[in-house]
Amino acid sequence: MKNVKVFSPASVSNVCCGFDVLGFAISGHGDIISLSTYNRAGIHLGNLTGYSIPNDSRHNTASVAAQSMLDYLNIRDGFIIDIEKNIKPGSGIGSSAASSVGAVYALNKILGEPLKKEQLIKFAMQGELISSKSAPADNVASALYGGLVLVNNFDNYRVTNLPAPNDIYAVIHHPLLEMKTSESRSNLPKKVDLKTTSNQLSYIAEFIHSLNNEDYELMRKSLKDCLVEHCRVDSIPLFNQAKRISLENSSLCYSISGSGPSCFSLIKEKTKAVNLKNIIDKVFVESKVKFNSYLTPLSSPGVHEIK
Amino acid sequence: MKNVKVFSPASVSNVCCGFDVLGFAISGHGDIISLSTYNRAGIHLGNLTGYSIPNDSRHNTASVAAQSMLDYLNIRDGFIIDIEKNIKPGSGIGSSAASSVGAVYALNKILGEPLKKEQLIKFAMQGELISSKSAPADNVASALYGGLVLVNNFDNYRVTNLPAPNDIYAVIHHPLLEMKTSESRSNLPKKVDLKTTSNQLSYIAEFIHSLNNEDYELMRKSLKDCLVEHCRVDSIPLFNQAKRISLENSSLCYSISGSGPSCFSLIKEKTKAVNLKNIIDKVFVESKVKFNSYLTPLSSPGVHEIK
Repeated sequence: MKNVKVFSPASVSNVCCGFDVLGFAISGHGDIISLSTYNRAGIHLGNLTGYSIPNDSRHNTASVAAQSMLDYLNIRDGFIIDIEKNIKPGSGIGSSAASSVGAVYALNKILGEPLKKEQLIKFAMQGELISSKSAPADNVASALYGGLVLVNNFDNYRVTNLPAPNDIYAVIHHPLLEMKTSESRSNLPKKVDLKTTSNQLSYIAEFIHSLNNEDYELMRKSLKDCLVEHCRVDSIPLFNQAKRISLENSSLCYSISGSGPSCFSLIKEKTKAVNLKNIIDKVFVESKVKFNSYLTPLSSPGVHEIK
Repeated sequence: MKNVKVFSPASVSNVCCGFDVLGFAISGHGDIISLSTYNRAGIHLGNLTGYSIPNDSRHNTASVAAQSMLDYLNIRDGFIIDIEKNIKPGSGIGSSAASSVGAVYALNKILGEPLKKEQLIKFAMQGELISSKSAPADNVASALYGGLVLVNNFDNYRVTNLPAPNDIYAVIHHPLLEMKTSESRSNLPKKVDLKTTSNQLSYIAEFIHSLNNEDYELMRKSLKDCLVEHCRVDSIPLFNQAKRISLENSSLCYSISGSGPSCFSLIKEKTKAVNLKNIIDKVFVESKVKFNSYLTPLSSPGVHEIK
């Protein structure tokens, strides 16, 4: 029996100025996917632990993704997937993407890497698309590539790894309530003003330029979301309070990850990041809102094999 | 009598993926503005040559811009402006912006530079805004700063000079018909799909990244306009034919400058640019469409003093 075991990270998507197109991996928080050869053809689900996920292989993101890749390669071998599901579904930090990516990455490994990394994304997306029919690939690309990624969803999921300054950290708070991505997406406006679009174009352009030139002042000014944040803040506990505190404590931004309810700050220097995390933790504790919180470098590894 | 004479360049705006936010100066094609002290307070118009422009100082972009700056500085001296108007109004290559920028730049010079460059933009915009109430600042910023610029119209006209690779040239064709910017803007959709917006975000982000990394393949893929080009092509002579020829001759893009009717290609290497200009010139000649055409490095100087 052959076996490949991988760690596939959670991720922040919709990074402020990059609705559906910018994301980054979270260090140390992710699903563990173990793929083994099996005596029945196709992809099967084995041991599922942690948060509850579908045990029917036709509805599980990991098995759907892996099966689509197996079909493409026209391989009739059998595999079984064990999943340690550590990322809460509906948390807004790429729970389904992590499982999909982990499954296709492990399958590619066990098969001797017949596909390149950029080819894996469309199969991982087959898993992602069962939770939301119009899912963008920012979480999948983040979990697969690691670091800060730009994805062009419209040109065959073209991914660009962006420079992520070493001393930028993300502080993430996840209020423990579940938001369905598909429902949250249906609350968004179908159309936006052309002026607002142009505004958002200048913000993302400034952000990409600031990253390439480590211009933190421009970065701070550019990390703005005129498109969807205002539609979602009301459903997110403590958003306004946490945002005010975050910005008062020299963060570069505070915004919603994915469809929420997780929110994140980006902040320069690890000590400031630790401090900010503690301060916002305290706000959640005092407000009696249950939560998880994470601290991660902006540049964190994507999916990788573990022993 | 003191006198300052400046050359203020034409410019290409709406650079493909950067609707209202990206522009660049055109080398060697521009207005010549001469500002002299005068014995009556305020800004006056003197000798106007070349293309016809308003001779009432309340309706001339140059005098309106200069007067707004004089008012801000609370200066009661008198100045007279001579304009050699070389850029055809309504050509889509920043005719009014060139005059506005030339006037405020010359005024700042003659006054001993009381204002910094970034402060001049809002006064130049006072001139620009008489032709269109919602004019963006991409032409003004290009003429003022030179090179390839990114402007955030919504945050106080914040301008970022982008890297412009030395070996990229622009080939510009201007069919000799006039299009009013205000009318052309009213034909645009007020709203765009959120998906289209997100698509355009990925293109401009890729473009800015490609510039910073001289990644010409990504540049070629990113120089796309999903927002307005399709609304305007029908009113532009030879657009589809010229675009096909441009792309067949290894240009990075072919799109509309400003509101049109001028169109431009970006292309790597001067010899290829010269060749492309000749080929498209021939198409215009054979089709009996009167035109002007220009060749310019992407990185060209902005407004500057001449003797």
